[in-house]
Amino acid sequence: MSLSHLDEKGHAHMVDVGAKAPTRRQALARAEVRLAPETLVLLAEGGLPKGDALAVARIAGIMAAKRAPELIPLCHPLPLSAVSVELSLSEGGVVIEASAATTAQTGVEMEAMTAAGVAALALYDMVKGVDRAAEIVSLRLLEKSGGKSGVWRRG
Amino acid sequence: MSLSHLDEKGHAHMVDVGAKAPTRRQALARAEVRLAPETLVLLAEGGLPKGDALAVARIAGIMAAKRAPELIPLCHPLPLSAVSVELSLSEGGVVIEASAATTAQTGVEMEAMTAAGVAALALYDMVKGVDRAAEIVSLRLLEKSGGKSGVWRRG
Amino acid sequence: MSLSHLDEKGHAHMVDVGAKAPTRRQALARAEVRLAPETLVLLAEGGLPKGDALAVARIAGIMAAKRAPELIPLCHPLPLSAVSVELSLSEGGVVIEASAATTAQTGVEMEAMTAAGVAALALYDMVKGVDRAAEIVSLRLLEKSGGKSGVWRRG
Amino acid sequence: MSLSHLDEKGHAHMVDVGAKAPTRRQALARAEVRLAPETLVLLAEGGLPKGDALAVARIAGIMAAKRAPELIPLCHPLPLSAVSVELSLSEGGVVIEASAATTAQTGVEMEAMTAAGVAALALYDMVKGVDRAAEIVSLRLLEKSGGKSGVWRRG
Amino acid sequence: MSLSHLDEKGHAHMVDVGAKAPTRRQALARAEVRLAPETLVLLAEGGLPKGDALAVARIAGIMAAKRAPELIPLCHPLPLSAVSVELSLSEGGVVIEASAATTAQTGVEMEAMTAAGVAALALYDMVKGVDRAAEIVSLRLLEKSGGKSGVWRRG
Amino acid sequence: MSLSHLDEKGHAHMVDVGAKAPTRRQALARAEVRLAPETLVLLAEGGLPKGDALAVARIAGIMAAKRAPELIPLCHPLPLSAVSVELSLSEGGVVIEASAATTAQTGVEMEAMTAAGVAALALYDMVKGVDRAAEIVSLRLLEKSGGKSGVWRRG
Repeated sequence: MSLSHLDEKGHAHMVDVGAKAPTRRQALARAEVRLAPETLVLLAEGGLPKGDALAVARIAGIMAAKRAPELIPLCHPLPLSAVSVELSLSEGGVVIEASAATTAQTGVEMEAMTAAGVAALALYDMVKGVDRAAEIVSLRLLEKSGGKSGVWRRG
Repeated sequence: MSLSHLDEKGHAHMVDVGAKAPTRRQALARAEVRLAPETLVLLAEGGLPKGDALAVARIAGIMAAKRAPELIPLCHPLPLSAVSVELSLSEGGVVIEASAATTAQTGVEMEAMTAAGVAALALYDMVKGVDRAAEIVSLRLLEKSGGKSGVWRRG
Repeated sequence: MSLSHLDEKGHAHMVDVGAKAPTRRQALARAEVRLAPETLVLLAEGGLPKGDALAVARIAGIMAAKRAPELIPLCHPLPLSAVSVELSLSEGGVVIEASAATTAQTGVEMEAMTAAGVAALALYDMVKGVDRAAEIVSLRLLEKSGGKSGVWRRG
Repeated sequence: MSLSHLDEKGHAHMVDVGAKAPTRRQALARAEVRLAPETLVLLAEGGLPKGDALAVARIAGIMAAKRAPELIPLCHPLPLSAVSVELSLSEGGVVIEASAATTAQTGVEMEAMTAAGVAALALYDMVKGVDRAAEIVSLRLLEKSGGKSGVWRRG
Repeated sequence: MSLSHLDEKGHAHMVDVGAKAPTRRQALARAEVRLAPETLVLLAEGGLPKGDALAVARIAGIMAAKRAPELIPLCHPLPLSAVSVELSLSEGGVVIEASAATTAQTGVEMEAMTAAGVAALALYDMVKGVDRAAEIVSLRLLEKSGGKSGVWRRG
Repeated sequence: MSLSHLDEKGHAHMVDVGAKAPTRRQALARAEVRLAPETLVLLAEGGLPKGDALAVARIAGIMAAKRAPELIPLCHPLPLSAVSVELSLSEGGVVIEASAATTAQTGVEMEAMTAAGVAALALYDMVKGVDRAAEIVSLRLLEKSGGKSGVWRRG
């Protein structure tokens, strides 16, 4: 059996991106976490029992971006040139925006999505002692750029 | 400075659970992923370009439960006695239910939540080539049991 | 002591590949697992108590390829452009073929070997409850290409 | 859907060991690596270009035992009380014996198997520059003890 | 070869702690990082270009405590019941105190030491753009308790 | 919110190195561990109860270099082309020198520092049973080269 004949049966496999051009690629994802009003007050005042939830969630998200290929079975490992995670208080909870960038043969959507998703999970961990019903109500890609398919923005 | 004086300033820290009794603890979390109708058809027929999305997401979720303490900064490491992740097709997408169990001094909510969340992220990775706008529309705890606070069920 | 004088004593070290040209590199490895006839029947019929062994082994192998530099002390970390793991039933067991590809300064033999080896270990985990004597009877490199030494095929 | 109803469909899942008694459990695995005669001489004389292969393989194996639950999808995480990996030169290559022990609700066969297997992979990495055709010709469990099923020894 | 005969040759191995009693064990470690006076001012005023160095170092240290068995080859994996990392500004730099606690068969010195050490490394990463000569001038155990050897305090 | 507007508030984030040129970059770090005279004798004679401390520390350091981006929150993941760790006995203890090299858009100071630091921690783990007061008395960067800022050497 030669190299080129593997996978012909359509099983799960990491797609070969070896023929793609390395280009600058970026992605932006957003997570929204709904919190009880009392939790929002504690969060804003720094009164949560486990400590500074926003700093913990931000750093957890940044670190998770780097672990995306370990967590997501068919995600390609690649060098990241930038990651950022921002959290802001909204009326009913917290909005998390995560961006990732690379110069590589494949995109960084999963890095941005994983950063936003794990930041949201870490935030849940910080508040669950006082707000077990807190819920991640959205985790989605907002935009991506780079590569053959160019720019995509959520409509 | 003695051991007992650390953390008095309220910074982020991993709460001491050393005085809690080790009891059987379980948690159940659910994620919901909204997919385009065409994606659901491809999923049901096994026609996705990256392969068997449900098996990949299930295994990614199970493996992620074991990595929860690495991903979530203040989550305690503990031995897991059981993890399962089930995915089922719903009208508008996929429902993922993840459960975790342990006999330990602290609960497994984050293990169940991480399993459901990473399974949802892995599912997104499997479909994003054909459905970039797919969205995780909910990730939440359904129930937990064990420990001092006993059984909790989402109302 | 200057940078160039380290390692002159011949201790274990990660060889400097900085002067090599980044070229397309591929490797193909094979593992063979010998199973009891009854186990092969259970495997073929999907009757194993722990679930779908082939899917679990395939995904474990793909994920392990990405962890090769963590597991193998002197293995260089590099971006992988493709990984695939195929399992097929043979007369006395299961044959696993794993391929890996990259464009980098060093080869991907260890990624392919680790993928095949960990897939075999995961398969053993899935069957050991019914077939503790199952044995990995071969794990070897079949071919590699790319780099200064060009193509090598097992004779 | 209640906790007890998950997995009824027989998909891959981590078996619930929560009802098992924690007992002392041990396992012993063996890997055999076949090397070219010239490689054996280099190994015995400490002349391999990448350095001390036996020390590297031993430590890689010990460290891999601790990573078994990360690598093997349905393997339970557990505290290990002991791990050892011994390598000895045989007529045609190297014999690796790995043992693991714990006091837990489930066995450590996969920890011992993973230690032996990764030690063998690390050994291959150390010699492959001079002996690409080196082959792992066996990786198998030799014995286990502890738990309900008691002692098992390969016949 | 039986289980009991491994390691008789004195090679590196993870000591068997299976016969020890699980008791409450704690450890406290300290790292000291010397910074330039201008760096201390930037740190105190929150003016470092990479952001909030103290929060990043604290969380890095807590997370590293959980990875100690992955990093330190012969360190036993164990469940941690508490970890905390505190940083305070001193006259010439930053003092980091890290504590860890468990109920287990072996101590948590390495978890505390690793937490303090990685917090110090993370702090260096945050300041190195403005203070490349910053130096970790001490990393040491201050005290430990629990187990057969009881309480130890640095004289 | 567009990609370029994230982080304007100065929170912790991984700096964008996407506009930097990939160049050959190297770094050299040193750790010094002070040991009791009796420990030095045991080390020199190979008489430590946990086995060969120098080999364990060397390999731990090399492997840790590859984990730097996992441990240090804002450290960029990058392919390493070389890592080496050398330990030598000095009058009062052990000197560890770690070097790392890459061709990338950002430097490898943290890889070298992490290698030296974790090697020192692993060495402490090997001796702490006989020398709990052993101390890492210095961990610092000696030199770096490559990139816009060119060569830096500790004065």
